[in-house]
Order: sequence, then structure tokens, then C-alpha cells
Amino acid sequence: MAKVTLYDTTLRDGSQMEGISLSVEDKLRIAVKLDEMGIHFIEGGWPGSNPKDDEFFRLARDLKLQHAVLVAFGSTRRVKGTVENDPNLKALLDSEAPVVTLVGKAYDRQVKTVLETSLEENLDMVRESIVYLRAQGRRVIFDAEHFFDGFLANPDYAIAAVRAAAEAGAEYVVLCDTNVGTLPNVSYDFTKRIGQEVDVPGGMHCDNDAEVAVANSLAAVQAGATQVQGTINGYGERCGNTNLLSVIGNLKLKLDTDVVADEQLQHLTETHRFVSETVNMPPNRYQAYVGESAFSHKGGLHASAMAKDDTSYQHIDPERVGNTKRIVVSELSGRGNIAIKIEEHGLSAQVPPERLGELLKLVKSKEQQGFQYEGAEASFDLLVRRAMPDYQPPFELVDFMVVMEKRRRGSDAYGDEAFSEATVKVKINDEVTFTVAEGNGPVNALDAALRKGLTLAYPDLERVHLTDYKVRIVDQGAEGTDAVVRVLVESTDGKHRWSTVGASSNIIEASWQALADSLEYALLPR
Amino acid sequence: MAKVTLYDTTLRDGSQMEGISLSVEDKLRIAVKLDEMGIHFIEGGWPGSNPKDDEFFRLARDLKLQHAVLVAFGSTRRVKGTVENDPNLKALLDSEAPVVTLVGKAYDRQVKTVLETSLEENLDMVRESIVYLRAQGRRVIFDAEHFFDGFLANPDYAIAAVRAAAEAGAEYVVLCDTNVGTLPNVSYDFTKRIGQEVDVPGGMHCDNDAEVAVANSLAAVQAGATQVQGTINGYGERCGNTNLLSVIGNLKLKLDTDVVADEQLQHLTETHRFVSETVNMPPNRYQAYVGESAFSHKGGLHASAMAKDDTSYQHIDPERVGNTKRIVVSELSGRGNIAIKIEEHGLSAQVPPERLGELLKLVKSKEQQGFQYEGAEASFDLLVRRAMPDYQPPFELVDFMVVMEKRRRGSDAYGDEAFSEATVKVKINDEVTFTVAEGNGPVNALDAALRKGLTLAYPDLERVHLTDYKVRIVDQGAEGTDAVVRVLVESTDGKHRWSTVGASSNIIEASWQALADSLEYALLPR
Repeated sequence: MAKVTLYDTTLRDGSQMEGISLSVEDKLRIAVKLDEMGIHFIEGGWPGSNPKDDEFFRLARDLKLQHAVLVAFGSTRRVKGTVENDPNLKALLDSEAPVVTLVGKAYDRQVKTVLETSLEENLDMVRESIVYLRAQGRRVIFDAEHFFDGFLANPDYAIAAVRAAAEAGAEYVVLCDTNVGTLPNVSYDFTKRIGQEVDVPGGMHCDNDAEVAVANSLAAVQAGATQVQGTINGYGERCGNTNLLSVIGNLKLKLDTDVVADEQLQHLTETHRFVSETVNMPPNRYQAYVGESAFSHKGGLHASAMAKDDTSYQHIDPERVGNTKRIVVSELSGRGNIAIKIEEHGLSAQVPPERLGELLKLVKSKEQQGFQYEGAEASFDLLVRRAMPDYQPPFELVDFMVVMEKRRRGSDAYGDEAFSEATVKVKINDEVTFTVAEGNGPVNALDAALRKGLTLAYPDLERVHLTDYKVRIVDQGAEGTDAVVRVLVESTDGKHRWSTVGASSNIIEASWQALADSLEYALLPR
Repeated sequence: MAKVTLYDTTLRDGSQMEGISLSVEDKLRIAVKLDEMGIHFIEGGWPGSNPKDDEFFRLARDLKLQHAVLVAFGSTRRVKGTVENDPNLKALLDSEAPVVTLVGKAYDRQVKTVLETSLEENLDMVRESIVYLRAQGRRVIFDAEHFFDGFLANPDYAIAAVRAAAEAGAEYVVLCDTNVGTLPNVSYDFTKRIGQEVDVPGGMHCDNDAEVAVANSLAAVQAGATQVQGTINGYGERCGNTNLLSVIGNLKLKLDTDVVADEQLQHLTETHRFVSETVNMPPNRYQAYVGESAFSHKGGLHASAMAKDDTSYQHIDPERVGNTKRIVVSELSGRGNIAIKIEEHGLSAQVPPERLGELLKLVKSKEQQGFQYEGAEASFDLLVRRAMPDYQPPFELVDFMVVMEKRRRGSDAYGDEAFSEATVKVKINDEVTFTVAEGNGPVNALDAALRKGLTLAYPDLERVHLTDYKVRIVDQGAEGTDAVVRVLVESTDGKHRWSTVGASSNIIEASWQALADSLEYALLPR
């Protein structure tokens, strides 16, 4: 099978999913991650459509991508004879992306009803735009929108559109199942047909409205397509796009296609989690290959069969995609988990085995309150240390108070900046320090006041700062503003990174716990 | 194409999904719903494996099912020569379910390593169990576990197992992709092959570990299978089972198979929601055919094309499956989205077309600040109304102040309850009301104080309360506690439900905005 390339459009098509809104910083971080996993083409956005996408391409020039090239997406020229002045094409060139994906119509009905122009003029738009971009030194990919509907309605015209793009210099012609009437056998047949009509490699871009996007993409590859377009976790408009992670798993492990290297494949699960976190969507725990439950085995028939034969209910070795097998076991075996965890933290010497039961109870009671130590290893570490009788904390929190005011000065209630101030009392070696600070919001003020107090005694804390602050509602059952919230804080001292957790029905208190843990952990001897 | 039957195993296989636990009452309610939608076989559980399943079958005898028959699931007899006394088979008969599905091995390796018996004895187990159940007047379906792995490893044995079941009187022989190595082309080929080897109709039971379960099931039908097994919403162990709702949509609307009647098809979306609610899993809003976002249109390009031609980005008419089209407003939208949205809100008369551009700009600038109107229709409504010169708000916010203290009384810094108090000043018809309240956390206190002030003038607000309060970090780029947070609040007055949004780097302020919007919306004339 010919080399297949992966084309990711999480940053454009993915961000059109309801509930997703990406900052420029998010997009840059995701691009780096995609590069690490071995994606070949990263579509960054649609230059000229909004200021965020323009800024992304400006900043992305400084990304040191190892494998991937950046792609700018846009449409063909509008007005006849104006390729040089077409604002769309100009924005694409200004983005300085080495590859441009042009979307064009391959469906006669769409040309008439949506573009409102003649069939011949549409072919000219495709042809002239590609020729012009090629002359400016850009590589071009052609996305044939509505290809499948178009081919069914008027195959000659659909082929003509794709051929126009190929002859004008497109590097790939991508069949888009924009409207998703397509099932895998159709995807296979049409891809085969286009391969016979056109000399340029084919690609597949599929939405998931019929829950067969992954299968459609595999069928296209089996029919000779050499590019699959999609998004991480299948994000995208409506029901989403082709999930590239499942495509990668299937191509690599079921169809023996070297679409990424073995080491890159191991990033699959991490990429799933990283992108979920970054776009702030809860990771889908049931997701194929990468979900937390993808290799979980509940009790009974499955668990005992698994004990006899590992391959009974596992289609692949989970480690190949960076995931792990989990046997969902009874509460009784929790003690073993705690012991493993304590060993992982290098604290075994400090925890006598007879205290494990007690610690387990403590963890369970904390988790009942809303704490979660999976993403907050530093807080788990502190929990264990604090439970030991000889632990000496570097500081003790005594009191705090936060005041937040919003006073109207003008006539617009939203016109005035709010004002936040915090006072914090901490005890360090029997000495009490009392500090006050203001901030951009109550949590920020609290953070500032606490640091102010602690850096007097521990000047090294100057180097520690927060890199992330996340809030989640834990108890969906509790109603309204009374619900328990969990705060996760990520910190760094420039060398290490650690995460801490707080939980309370009071968001300020939860934040306070996570902040204090973060600084206490920074002061531990290492 | 021959009539295809639908076999639902939500009540057994579906309930094995991590996070799902069904009561007997839940199971009975779901069974009724499945019957309404036209499911042919409803697998209720595994009699004898737990008391819940036995009780289900006892109570299910009184269900007045219109189309469906109940099925009991179990395994073949264990010890040689004991069919009459086998506890498994006895429990199956005692359930009084008219149909029994027997699961048996078709993979030689599994017979040896898991059953730990001979290949011939396994065939006897299948044969004798089915003959016995048939003699007792039961219809029998045979689930050939691990069929695909088995067929690859030892095709003769896999066929022998299926043939043994067919000859013993099974009504369907179902190929189970238990371990999910299978892709659709393989599913097609193997199903075709079994159709040539065995006279009894074939079926397909597939797990979703490769994200192609729906496609595998369709491929099997295209190869001649006449039964598809699966679950509602694809619930099931690990990555879940074949999603029957997608299978139904595809069979009926893409493959012209009369698997359910047109009226039954209209229950698809309702069944999705009902089962999600009943099993207490958040409905997957991106789910094919039935998800809330399945026919939503967000991008400007899409929305304007939709306005010109309904079929541009809709593969089917959503009403056929009981779903509806939605136009979503976001920074990606163009003027067209805003106009459609305003129409949906019944505000067209109040917004002259020349103001659309201005409103779009306003929405985009708000979204830049972190607001998002997708999940906050009520805030969008208020945004439009406030932009109109003659809008008279029912109240105006003047000032607020929140104080949160935590004072140490004992020796444990975490031992004391925190204390929160809020004061709020609002103006109603030129009269200023100043109220104070305390709460469980600052947001809760603010909510209480605001309501206290407003209910003096608007006693109807007593009926309004919050049902959900969500916090998200928007700008992951901004560091630490300085990041912008978005608060979404959902409210109800017992009859309607609405959502509002606030955004700020100050979480209290963001909450305040969403709370105030929620109450202002409640006071609008409707």
C-alpha cells in the first residue's frame, strides 16, 4: 500500500464543534503536539476570516515543527479576472503557510444555488486559483466539497471539477463527504473511480453524521486514497469529523500501513488527553484505542477469561498506543493500589505497611468530598506526608479574608472594573506574617497575598509560578451555585512541573487549598 | 433485501458499560420504549446470574409489548449429559422468555484456554443445549463468540460450530466480533461465506473498539445478514457496542431497508434521550442522527449555504428521526446566522436589518472577551434586546460587594468552615434596593442577596431556581489565576428552562453576570 499521509484539521474544522472555542495559544500548543505524533499536514485555520487565525499563522512561523507542514485553508477566487487582487487568495499568501488547501464545488446544484454562478465559471475559479497559488510557490491541496452528492447527481461534472484541480497543479484531490450520504462501500467505489480518472493522489474528508466516518476513510485508503483528513477525537461541526486517532490505530495496527512510526503511535493516548484538556472538553472515556475504558474489564466472565488469556477481550496490546489495561476490581483491592502509588512517589520508606489501610480510608473520604488525585500528584504526595506523625510543614495557614467589590461609577453597570483584595495570615516557624494584596479577581488576589507572605521567609518561591488553573463542577447532582467544585492548579519552578487539587462548595476555598498545596510542595526537599 | 430484524441488548451488554447501573424498574421502562420504536428482540438479561435479572423476567411477563419479544441470554450447558439439570439452562427456561440466546465458542483457542475442554465437546455443548431448549418450546438464537478471530485461526472449526447450532434448530446464527479485529470488508466477506455454508439466517454482533461497529453491521447486512444486534447509544463494555440508533438511521434512510416503520423512526431522538436519562449518562450531543448538535450549523459558510439550500449540510430531514435543525451563533458566524437566530427568537420585528452588522460585531467582541452564546440562548436574547434603543430592563444592577473569610479557631487550618456574605444594590423603577445575604461560598451568597432584593418587587421570581452552574477556563493562554473564566447557569421556573453566560477573569464577576441575566430573562414578557 502506498504511503498514506495524515491531514489534521482540528484547528479549523474541529474548532467548529459546538462547545469548542480555541485561543491562539491553544492552537499553537496543539500544533506542536500533532507534530510530535507524526501528523503530516496541520491545517491552522482560514486566514482572513477572523483575526485569531491571522495571528495564529503569524506566530506559527516560529514553531519548530519536525515532521509536519502548516496548511492554510480558504476558498477559490470570487470575481472573474481578479486572482491577483482576490482578498481570499491574498490572505492565504500573506499567511506564509507553505501549503494551501482550496475548497471548491464539485456538485452542480451547489454551484447554481449557493455560488450562484455558471458551471464553467466554477471550473475557472478552481483552475485559475490553483495556477496562481502554484506560481507564487505554494503547494496546493484541493478539497472537492460535496463530491459524493455531486458524483451521484452529475458524475461528469464532479470529475471535471476534480480534473481541473489536478491539471492546475493540485498535489492531492480530496473527496469531501460534506453532506454524508456516504457508506463505506460507496466511499470505496468512488475513490477507485477517481483514481482511474485523475493522475493525482486522492484523499478523503468525511464527517461523522452516519457514524461511519472512520470506516469511510479506511475504505478510501483500501481503494487507493493516500491522504486521510480528520481531527483529533473526531471534533467538528454537528456530529464531528473523522476521528484521526482511530484512523491511525486502524491503519497502523489492522491494515499494516506505516502511517506513523511505532514511537509516534505511543503518543496516541497522550494526544487524546492533551487535546481534550486544551479544548476543555471532557475526554471521552469510551473512545476507541485511547479512552480510559478502552481496555477496562469489569468482573465476571470477561475478567476471568482475561486472567486465562490476555487476548480474550483485547484486540491489541494497549501499550502500543500508550494506553493501559485496567481490571475494574472490588473496593477490597484498593490497598494494593495505594501501595503501588506510594512506591511510585518514592515514599515507601516513610509509610509503614500497617498504615496503608488508614491512608486508603483517608483517600476515599477525600475523594468523597470531591478531591481527585489522578491529575494532582503533588497533593497526593502531601496527603501521604501529612498523615505521617513526624511531618513538619514549611508553613501553616492561619486566616484569610477576601473582599470583592463592584461599584457603579458611570451609567453602565458593566462599565466599571471590579476590585478584589485579599489578606492572608501564615505562620512560619512560630512567627505569624500578615499580608495584603489586590488582584484581578479574588483568587488572583489571594494568590498574590499568600506569595507575598511566604517569599519573605522563602525567597526561592519567586521562581515558582502558576501555569494553569482549572475549575470543574464535581457534583452534578447538587443544584446550582451550591455544587462542589474542584480546582486544579499547575505550577512550575522553571525546572519541574506539578499539579495540586482543592475541592469545596466554595470556589475560593477550593482555590486556596490548591494554591497552598502548590507552594508547600515547592518547598519540600527534593 | 430480506427483512432485517433488530436485536437490542442495552439491558444486558449495555449495562456493562463503566458508569451504568440499572434498576429493575429502569429496565422495564427501557423495554417499553424499545418496543415503541420497533425493536424486534429485547434481551433482558442473564437469568440466574443475579437476582435483578430474575426479577426483571418475572415482572416483564406483565409488559404489554406490541412488536417485540423478550429474550433471555445465557451460556450452553456445562457438564456432559446434564442438559436437564444444568443450572444455566434451567434458569433460562424459568425466565419464561419465549426466545433464548445461547452464547457459545467458535474459536478453537478459546475452547482450549478458557473453556478448558475438547473441540468436539464444545460442539456437543452447543448442539445438545439448543436441541433441549427447542424441545421445551423455546426459539433459539446462537451467538458465536469470537467468531472472527476463530475464523481467521481455524475456519473449519468456526464453521463447524455455527453449523452445529444451525442444525440443532437455531433461528439465527450471529457472528460476534467479540475481540474486534474486524473491519467492514472482513465483516462483509465472512458473513457472505457463512451464508454459503449454513442455511439459517446470519446476524452480526459487534463491539466498537475500532470505531467501526456501525459500519461492520451495515456491511454484514449488505452481505446478507438479517439480524443486527446492538444497544441504544452504543452502550457497552470498553468502547461500547454497535449503536443501534445509527444502524436504524442508516438502514432505513441510506439503504432503504424497512427495518422500522416511518412512525417508529420518528421515535429515534426521543429514545436516545430517554435511555440516556434513564441510565443517567449525559446524552451525547454530537451523536449521529439523534444528538442535539446533529443538525446544528455554526460556521458562517455553512449557515449561509443552509439559508439558500436546506440540503447543503443536512444529509436527511431531521424531522424524520424526530430531531430538529439548529443555527448556532458564534464568532465563526456571519450575518446570516444572526438573522436566522433573531428570527428563531421571534425578535425579527424589533431588529431592523441595517442593525444586523452592528449586532454581529457586538457578538464577536463579546466572544473575544470569553462569552459564548451557543449554550446560553437566554443571554443571546438579552444581548439583542439590550441593543435596541427602546428596551426597558426590569431592573438595573448598581453595586455589589462580597466578603469571604476563613478564620482559624482550632489547630487544623482546614477545620473551620469558611464564611461568605454578599451585599447587592439594584434599581427597580428608579427605586434602589440594598440587600445582604450569606451563603455557602461567595457565589451562593451573591445569588441569595440578589434574589432577596428582586423578589421584593417581583414575587414571581420565587419560582425561579438554578438547576446547573458550570465553570470553564476560556483562555488557557493567560497564566494561572489571571485566566478568563466562563460561567454558564441553567435556570427553570418549573415550566421553561434557559441558560445564561458570564465571562471575566474574575470568577465572581462572571457568575454575577450569568445570575443577573438568568433573573432578567425570567422577568421578560413571553
